[in-house]
Parts: sequence; C-alpha cells; structure tokens
Amino acid sequence: MAGISGFGLRVGTLATGPRDLITDVPGVRVGHCTVDQGRVHTGVTVVVPTQDNLTRKRPVAATFVQNGYGKTMGTVQVDELGYLETPVSLTNTLCVGRVADALVTDALAKSRVLKSANPVVGETNDGRINDIRNRAIEERHVLQALADASETFALGAVGAGRGTVCFGLKGGIGSASRLVEVFGNAYTLGVLVQSNFGLMEDLVVCGKHVGQELVRQLAPQQAQEQGSIMVVVATDAPITSRQVRRVIKRATVGLSRTGSHLGNGSGDVFIGFTTANVVPARVHAPLQFTCLPDDMLDPLFRACAEATEEAVLSSLLYAEPLCGADGTLYHSLSEFIPPVR
Amino acid sequence: MAGISGFGLRVGTLATGPRDLITDVPGVRVGHCTVDQGRVHTGVTVVVPTQDNLTRKRPVAATFVQNGYGKTMGTVQVDELGYLETPVSLTNTLCVGRVADALVTDALAKSRVLKSANPVVGETNDGRINDIRNRAIEERHVLQALADASETFALGAVGAGRGTVCFGLKGGIGSASRLVEVFGNAYTLGVLVQSNFGLMEDLVVCGKHVGQELVRQLAPQQAQEQGSIMVVVATDAPITSRQVRRVIKRATVGLSRTGSHLGNGSGDVFIGFTTANVVPARVHAPLQFTCLPDDMLDPLFRACAEATEEAVLSSLLYAEPLCGADGTLYHSLSEFIPPVR
Amino acid sequence: MAGISGFGLRVGTLATGPRDLITDVPGVRVGHCTVDQGRVHTGVTVVVPTQDNLTRKRPVAATFVQNGYGKTMGTVQVDELGYLETPVSLTNTLCVGRVADALVTDALAKSRVLKSANPVVGETNDGRINDIRNRAIEERHVLQALADASETFALGAVGAGRGTVCFGLKGGIGSASRLVEVFGNAYTLGVLVQSNFGLMEDLVVCGKHVGQELVRQLAPQQAQEQGSIMVVVATDAPITSRQVRRVIKRATVGLSRTGSHLGNGSGDVFIGFTTANVVPARVHAPLQFTCLPDDMLDPLFRACAEATEEAVLSSLLYAEPLCGADGTLYHSLSEFIPPVR
Amino acid sequence: MAGISGFGLRVGTLATGPRDLITDVPGVRVGHCTVDQGRVHTGVTVVVPTQDNLTRKRPVAATFVQNGYGKTMGTVQVDELGYLETPVSLTNTLCVGRVADALVTDALAKSRVLKSANPVVGETNDGRINDIRNRAIEERHVLQALADASETFALGAVGAGRGTVCFGLKGGIGSASRLVEVFGNAYTLGVLVQSNFGLMEDLVVCGKHVGQELVRQLAPQQAQEQGSIMVVVATDAPITSRQVRRVIKRATVGLSRTGSHLGNGSGDVFIGFTTANVVPARVHAPLQFTCLPDDMLDPLFRACAEATEEAVLSSLLYAEPLCGADGTLYHSLSEFIPPVR
Repeated sequence: MAGISGFGLRVGTLATGPRDLITDVPGVRVGHCTVDQGRVHTGVTVVVPTQDNLTRKRPVAATFVQNGYGKTMGTVQVDELGYLETPVSLTNTLCVGRVADALVTDALAKSRVLKSANPVVGETNDGRINDIRNRAIEERHVLQALADASETFALGAVGAGRGTVCFGLKGGIGSASRLVEVFGNAYTLGVLVQSNFGLMEDLVVCGKHVGQELVRQLAPQQAQEQGSIMVVVATDAPITSRQVRRVIKRATVGLSRTGSHLGNGSGDVFIGFTTANVVPARVHAPLQFTCLPDDMLDPLFRACAEATEEAVLSSLLYAEPLCGADGTLYHSLSEFIPPVR
Repeated sequence: MAGISGFGLRVGTLATGPRDLITDVPGVRVGHCTVDQGRVHTGVTVVVPTQDNLTRKRPVAATFVQNGYGKTMGTVQVDELGYLETPVSLTNTLCVGRVADALVTDALAKSRVLKSANPVVGETNDGRINDIRNRAIEERHVLQALADASETFALGAVGAGRGTVCFGLKGGIGSASRLVEVFGNAYTLGVLVQSNFGLMEDLVVCGKHVGQELVRQLAPQQAQEQGSIMVVVATDAPITSRQVRRVIKRATVGLSRTGSHLGNGSGDVFIGFTTANVVPARVHAPLQFTCLPDDMLDPLFRACAEATEEAVLSSLLYAEPLCGADGTLYHSLSEFIPPVR
Repeated sequence: MAGISGFGLRVGTLATGPRDLITDVPGVRVGHCTVDQGRVHTGVTVVVPTQDNLTRKRPVAATFVQNGYGKTMGTVQVDELGYLETPVSLTNTLCVGRVADALVTDALAKSRVLKSANPVVGETNDGRINDIRNRAIEERHVLQALADASETFALGAVGAGRGTVCFGLKGGIGSASRLVEVFGNAYTLGVLVQSNFGLMEDLVVCGKHVGQELVRQLAPQQAQEQGSIMVVVATDAPITSRQVRRVIKRATVGLSRTGSHLGNGSGDVFIGFTTANVVPARVHAPLQFTCLPDDMLDPLFRACAEATEEAVLSSLLYAEPLCGADGTLYHSLSEFIPPVR
Repeated sequence: MAGISGFGLRVGTLATGPRDLITDVPGVRVGHCTVDQGRVHTGVTVVVPTQDNLTRKRPVAATFVQNGYGKTMGTVQVDELGYLETPVSLTNTLCVGRVADALVTDALAKSRVLKSANPVVGETNDGRINDIRNRAIEERHVLQALADASETFALGAVGAGRGTVCFGLKGGIGSASRLVEVFGNAYTLGVLVQSNFGLMEDLVVCGKHVGQELVRQLAPQQAQEQGSIMVVVATDAPITSRQVRRVIKRATVGLSRTGSHLGNGSGDVFIGFTTANVVPARVHAPLQFTCLPDDMLDPLFRACAEATEEAVLSSLLYAEPLCGADGTLYHSLSEFIPPVR
C-alpha cells in the first residue's frame, strides 16, 4: 500500500519490508495529528520505538547532525548516554518547546516518581504554507498523535508534514524500509522523513533529473534553499549507540541522490535507534549487549541509504497539492509521476 | 558588593572586574524571576548578551558539552552557525520546553516577519527542593526575567537557582569576572553559573578540603551525585566561535578545583559568547572580523578557569538556606565561612 | 585537457575552472612521485596550498571525517587551531609514518629554529595492486613529489593513486574545479581525490547505473568494499575554519552520486583549506579576517558536491588499466566510456 | 615502590592498586627506551594493553582531545571503530612518524597477511631539553621499548619522558592506579602520563600552591606555557567505547588540580582502553559485550581524576634533575618534597 512501486519506481537493490514503512521494524508505531484551520497547516508526528514504558526501558540510540541549521532538541543527552527516553517527535520550528513540554506531560503521566525526562523533538520550518507564527500546536495535539500511534499510518501532507515544501513541490512525511541478512539472521531497517528541503531544479528521481523539466513546466519562484529534513531511522539489528550513529550517517547518501546538496538553510538532522538493545532504568548487575561486528554493518548502511532516498520520494508522491500562505500552489509529484495501474 | 572577597576568599591571580559579575562585560545584563509558592521553589534566569535585537545582530557564540547528561536546547544550531539569536536562559529540567516557547514569544514580538528562532535554554534538576513535577514556570515568568534584566542582579537562591543544591549545601546562581590584557588592550570575561552538582565530602574552597569537615558537622544523607551545572561565559574580547569554544572548555578547570569530578549524573554544559563580533542577519558584502591569534588566548583561558571556580563559590556563599521537599535543610556555605567585617 | 567533457560527460550546472583542476585555485600546486618497481605500485601525491612558507603563513583549514576507518594524521591540530602548516600529502596506508617524517624533514629545512610541525597525511589502502607490506615509500619520494609540485599535473594511476582500485576498476588521482560568484566576486573551488572505494555493481556515472552493466561484462570477483577515499578541497573564497568544515562536508554528496554508500571499510576523510585567510606564525596585533556570511555559502556547497563527483569520475577515466597482485586486471573506465573526438 | 606515599603525599580517597601503576590493570605492560647521547635526551614509552596479538584481539578503546594543539596519530580510527590495534606509544613531537612506522613494522612481523594497521602514537615537545630537531628516534628504539614492556617500569626522566619539562621542573613519565568496586566486583583503573606542561607559578601539590614558593626560590625564566600532556588510561572494568570516552574525559579534573589551566600550547590528549571487552578480527556471529550501566560509572570517573592527578605528581617526584639545551637546570620536585623515611 505504501512504497513507491505503485508509481513504477524502485530505489536500490535490497528487498523492502512488508509495508515498506518504518513500522516494519517490530514494535515501532507512528502517529500523526494534523492541524488545519484557516491559514494554519501544520501538525505533529511521533515515532514510538517500542511498546515499553520508555522511561524504564530505553532503546539504544544516537543522533547525527549533518547540517546543524536546526532546532532539534534532546541530542545532547542522547549522544552522551546512548539511549532514548521519549518517542521521537516532529513538528514545526516554532513549536519545538511546546511539543517537548507535552512529551514531558506524557512521561510524567506514566510514572508517579519521575523527575527527569529528555524529550527528543525535531522540526522543519513549514512557514511557506503554514502560518507558523501562530504556533498552533498545543499539548493536546501531541497527546493525540501519541494516542494515534499505530503500525499503519498515512504518508504525505499529514502530521508534521502537513505544511512542508520539498524541491518546490508539496513535501511531507515519507517512509520506507529494507530487509537485510547478517550471519543468517534477518533484520529490518526503516526510515521516516519529514521532507522540507531542496530546490525544484535539483530534484532527481531514481537517477533522473526530473527537476529541470518540472521547472520548465511550472516556472516556480525559485528562492534560496530553506527548510530542512528530519530523518528518523529504526532497526531491530543488535548494534551499539556508536554503530547506530554510523548507520544513520548513511542517510546523507540517500538525500544526496534525491538532488540535495545539503544547502546552508537546510538543517539535516538524523535520529536513530535500535529496538534490539535496551538500557533498563534500574539495574543491579552489569548489562549484557549483543552487537554485530562493524565489518558486518554494510548491509545496514546500504539499507539506510536506500530507505532514506525512497522515503523522500514517498513523501513527495503521497503528498496532496496545497496552497502556500502567499497563494503559491505546491504541486504533488504524483501529478507528474502518476500511479501505475 | 558581589564577589567572594567579602568572605576573605580569593581565587587565582587575575584582577576582578568592578562588580565581579558577568555584567562587567559591557552590554551584558542578567534578569531573574523567582517562583516560590507552597512546595514550588524554582525560577528562570536570563543572560542577555547585548542591547541589540538579537534576531538581527547575533553575537558570535559556541557551546561545549563536558558531560551531556542534560537537556540543554539550542546547541545544534549554535555549534553549526556560531552565533546566538536569543538570550541564554536557565531553568529547571522539566520546564525547558516552556522557557523555549517563551523565548520564541519574545523573539516574535520583536519582529513582525520573523519565522524562525533558535531558543537557547539550559537547565539543572532542582527536584530535591522544588516540586519539579509541578512545572511551575509559565511564559510570564520568562518575560518577567527578561524585563528584569539589568547590570546588577542578585546571587544565590534566586531565579533558576532558587531550588538547586550544590555539594549538599544550598546552591544557586553565582557569578564572577576577570580582567585581562592582550596586545595592550583590556578585555573582560565574566561567568554566571547555575550550580546544582557535587557531593558535600568533595567540596574544596580555595584549595581547602572543607567538605570532609562539613560532613562531620552535618552528617548529611549522602546520595549519588545528581544535578548538573550550567556555565554561561561572556567576553568582549574579539574571538571567533572556534575560539569561544576553546575558552569555555576551561570552565572544567574551575569546576574541578571546587571538587567536582564531573559525576555521571551531572550535566556539565557550557555556553559562551563574545560581544565583540556580531553576525548581522542581512548582509550585502563579506563580513569583517577581528580575532586574537590563538597563542594569545591564555589570559582568557585562565580568566575562564578562575571566574568559573569563583562563580561556583559565590553561588554557595550568597545562597540562603532552604528546606528540601523531604524536610532536609540545605545550609548556606556562608554559615561556615561567614562574611568578614 | 583535464576534466571529463572530453568523454562527453558533465556533472552539475556550475562552470568549471580553466584547467578543471584543483590548481585552478590560484597558488595551489600538486606534485606526484610514482613508485613502480616489480610488485610495488604506489606513490605520493602532495597538494601545496600556497607559495608561502607554510610554517609562517598558515592557510585556514579544517577536516571532516565522514567515515573514520582510516589512518589520516594531523587532524587533531587542524581541528583545534584551524590551519595547516604542511602540504597535504597522500600515500598508502602503511607509509603514513614515513611520509609524515619526510614532511617534517621538509619543514625543518625551511627554518633553522622550527621545533614543531603538524604533518597532514592521508591514505588509502592500495594493497590489491601494490605490495603494500613492502612499504616502498622513502623520504626521497616525498621530497621529489614536493619538488614536482606544479599547476599542471597528471591524473589517474599516478602518485598516491598508482595502486588504488575504485568500483572494481582502476582508480587513482582525480580532480575538478568549479567557479562561483558571491556578492559579485568570483571564487574558485577545486577538489583532488585519491579514489580507492566502491563495488563495481554500484558505479553511477552522471546518473546512469553503469556498474551493473560492467558487472555483466567483466564478472569481477566481488568482495566487501575496502579501500577509502581521500578528498582534498581548496578554495580562494574568504571563509573561516568553521565554514571550511561546512563546505567540505558536502563532498559526501558528490561521493554518494557516484554510487558510494560510505561502506564500513571505506575511510572517507576530507581536508579543506582556503588561501584567502592565512594565520601568520608571529603576530603583534589582533588579526583581521574576511568571511562570507553563512547564508551565502550555498554556491560553495554546490561547487564542492559537483567537483567531488567529477573528481572521482576523472580518477577513473584517466587511470590506465593495471594488474593486481593476484593477477586480476583492473580496467580503466575509459575502455567503456571512451574519449569523444 | 612507585606511588607518592613515600613522599608523604596522598591524592583522593580511593585505594591504590598494589604497585600504584597502570600495570596494576592485569595484562597491561609498559616499556621504555631512553635515548641519551650528547645533546639528545628523548625516548619512547609504550603501553601494551594485553598479551594478545592486538591485530586479532583488539581492546575496546576511545580517545578524547581536551586541547588539540598536538600531533597525536591514530585517533580517527579509534574514534570510529572503538578499538586499538597497536600498543599506545609516546615519543617527542617530531618523531611521531618514525614511531608510527616502527609500530607498523611490529604489526607486520606478527602476521604474514596483515595489510593494514592503525598505529596510535602520542607526543609532547621535549625541545627545551632535547635537541628535538635531531629526530634521534629510530625503529630499533621502538622495538626495544616493546621488548622492554613489563609489569614493572621506571618513572620520571625515562623513555618518552626523558626530555620533558613540567611546571618549570623536570617532568617525565608518571603513573598511578585506583581500585573501585561496582556491583560487588573489584576493578582497577590505571593511568600513565607523559608530563610536559604548566608554568612553575601554577603548580599545586595536593591542594597546596607550592608553585609560587618555588618561583621565589628558583626565579625561573617564565615563558608562555608550551608542551602538552599525554594521558593513557587503562581499566579492566567492562565498558563500551562510548563509556571509555566518558571515563577518560575525567583526566581533565586531575590535570586541573595540579594547576593546569589547559594552556593554548599544551596539547591535552587522552587515550583509554579496557581489557574487559575485546573485538576479535574475524568473527562469524554477533559479539557479546558486558558493560556497566552509566549510572554506575562514578567510581571509575573518580578513579580517573585521582589517578591522573597523582600520575602527574609522580612524574615530577621521580624525575631526576636535568639541564636544558640552553643550560637551564630543570630541578626535580623531590628536591623540595623529599622522600619521607
């Protein structure tokens, strides 16, 4: 149902997971809350790593900042301690504080004694379509996205992707997954993106420079690249936080192949976790970890590159067209690459 | 009036500025809002770098995470772009999102077209004294702290230091400054800390291991180190963001000399800026910068180490005693090292 | 004469410099020493940033490690102080120490009082073609490469690229340049690579997946990705070391578009410098710097991405075929994409 | 026999290991080669982590650069992959390349098929005493130091510490160890330093500012801080590379308490490893790791701080006086703090 094969497209050589979504990684769920009212077109998207209480069973995680023109919150502690303790949440630039506060509300509700939590919130600037100064996101929207979290979820102009613009087209939430095998064991890696970057002229779809043709057709007002992209990577492969960082760094490969050159104004921030290694909050003995040796990570690197490239394309293909605040129409890529029957 | 000489103490060899406060750096102002109501004892402290509209004239800045067990927000962009665009704000761990949101409110109020802002918010966990789960900080408290910003300000159990605990004593806001000369030019470096770290047994005051004596007298319930320390460093020396990072790294030297060993639970996060180099928001030509050569930075390194050590001591000496949530009395260091007449 | 237009190929949209070489950046010179004797096929390549004595006039520089499976030397100090004090030298993995030692010889020869130098040496592992355990590089080879440094230089299977393998074909030294304009001023950015990475099946040439066709024709023994790539970036645009790092990070974009997914075994290390800002060794007053504002860096980002992609292709197109140590023939890409008349 | 209790001194509260040396960590050995000939006073010191062939069983490791004014080699790969594959070697600034090359010789000798090795070499600049431009270190000196490696070893003006100067006194090799207990298991942490930093006026011995008194007595020619310090940390506690980095960061605490303010010219570079987790070179299944939870690391943090402070003092106390190249006599701290009977 998801995926880009319905549009006659294919990225890379690895097999996709059954849904071709980040939720192919067992236990991972995604929820949206879309806020559409008048000139407001924005929202929240959450990636919930596991069914566990995250303040007690914390999935091993890491972040990587490929281009730090962004306001992502929570990276300091994730990088020091190597685990998540809240869902990864995405929203618009000016609502990061509100979403963080709502994640704290959620964490406090799950524990009567908790006095600390590290909310992880990423963002892109949806101000071309959304009246971003309005700061429409409230606590209830975040809680609604959390309640909405499920293995199936919508792609395109929904949740935190409601108001984003990518390559001059309507961007949004995209996702993809890949299956790999290491030492005879099968693992899944999934990616979810909030796409809000790129100039139309640069768009590359599966190696084809379609951007230049689109510019000729649509003659957009080209401006400097703005925006950003958030990439969330999940896997069930047993790896350490150092290795999670190595894996998610390969998201850059996928972005580059869609035509991005990591423009100054595009905050390119990646957050990854594995569900296979968990750090319990209270322990009374040394922890036991399993991890793949680094020289067996190549399949995961390739999976991350492929799934990121595809996730960006899926965000463009599944997004419906939307009008910007200034009347500009942001088209859907599916108008130019329609679904095949 | 500030400083620790009134207690017969002296740190290091460099001269202090006229107030011995971070506000000895011309243009820097500090404001507090203290929230005391029932079991709530917390607050907000803001360091305002300049009188300019920060979204248009952005002071060169950097951060350094000595120990990342903390929730500081805004570091990703500061490290990428090398400047601040909001005041540096401090509060308790669970209110970071709210303070960030209030800084956005403040930034939006200063510009009718602004669509982005990178709020910088540091925190420590004041949950031993403060009913932190209450999340008492609201937008108005932040705006009040901003309105309160001035060249003179209170030290000790005020603002973001209202509920903090340091070396088993009452901690809080401390500050100090140092004067240096490079190439015949006089520069000032100032430090402000929110102190919330350390075990009583480890306290060292100007080289003396007073902590062990205090433990004998007070027989505190010793627990694992918790808390954190935020260090804000300001200077008017002309340096680049790379050099700001080099300077603020020396805050670790000062912390170490007060007895800290940078405990696991203590997030040690430093944020620094210079008022001498500013990045304008809209420019139409290359920028001109002045900077000291790196081999002339030693006086600033020494100043940062000395002022940080003194700032921690001043936070302890100026803090009034306060009772914790569980009835524990957190003494003031001034009970044991009284002011000299 | 250089460049890939002679093969009917073109990367990106920016104009190339007159030579389409890193030496289009005024003052930059490149020298090779190729060592071919029996089973030894290796060498040294040096990029000399300026005509100045580098121990006295040190070009602003930075490094970025995209994948640190490599033995590059000199990065610690470049990252701390932001400048180079020797030419950037490339060789094979096991000869880094020797080349570093020779750079020290060269630095000492230029100053009778010098007691310190930070040699910068990159490497890739040419052990598939070269008898790398032989460690054939001696001091005289490095000094010869330095003496050979010139604005014109050979590409392909020469110098440090003599024994490298890239995408299962013969790799080597490649180079390209791009011209950009900022605020009406013209700047040049040039790239030189030592290419030794990639699996044949992954090779992409200007968007075309030619690798899979090559595999069908050549049926190579495919193994795990090994090797590495070194990317040296030069520019005359006035930027700071922080900005040099931002620019060279975009080399990853170029690599990704040639088909790399930054494999585990491929050390991807980038070293960049600008000739427009120099740190003198002895100064008696603050330094004056000019730099572009960050939101004007996009042309340089794009230039780095394009020039890196082209430099990899030029390394493949200009390399002559060579037999590996085990008898494997490593073809030249020019056998499949011949020069156009 | 080692340790500083023989001088009536004690650092911190943790128990020392039986030898109070880094070799209290089981399996760790240290070897020196001292080169004294005419105006040459320099050498090599190696820390050998285990009895294993390091190219096959690689101890988990990390580095931390507190101040990167230094030429340490090998950090790029250690930080990426998290393990060592050669002994950690120390020498003078200008001989890093030669020592690296000798480590490669040693690695090649241990394996007939090895084609890659990542030599880790640290350095300080001993040019005040040693005729450093002479580059007296040859391959045989390194091999001799490796052959000399043993559980007992000399401290002071030996090996890589032969020509170093610390706080204006004779510096050299120092070492100390601490015992800690976590979850009822006993672990050892040991430190070895090559001390070559600090101004005499700044020296602090166990909290006493003895430096100022020494300056009155010795009236040294005070210059800018030069030099550097290398800190090697070993432990048998089961930790990950991320945690090794966290532990060794606390070396800064120890340095600060000896009076250092991490001067510009002092490269402060730390390298650590654990013998409890080893990465085998060839594996056919996922690896199993044991690690302590982060909130149980405080004893190791404290051990690292204490052992580093003591190791610096031991380097000063065990060093014999030596004359500099310019005739300056560098005294031993033991002249002022003599052994107690």
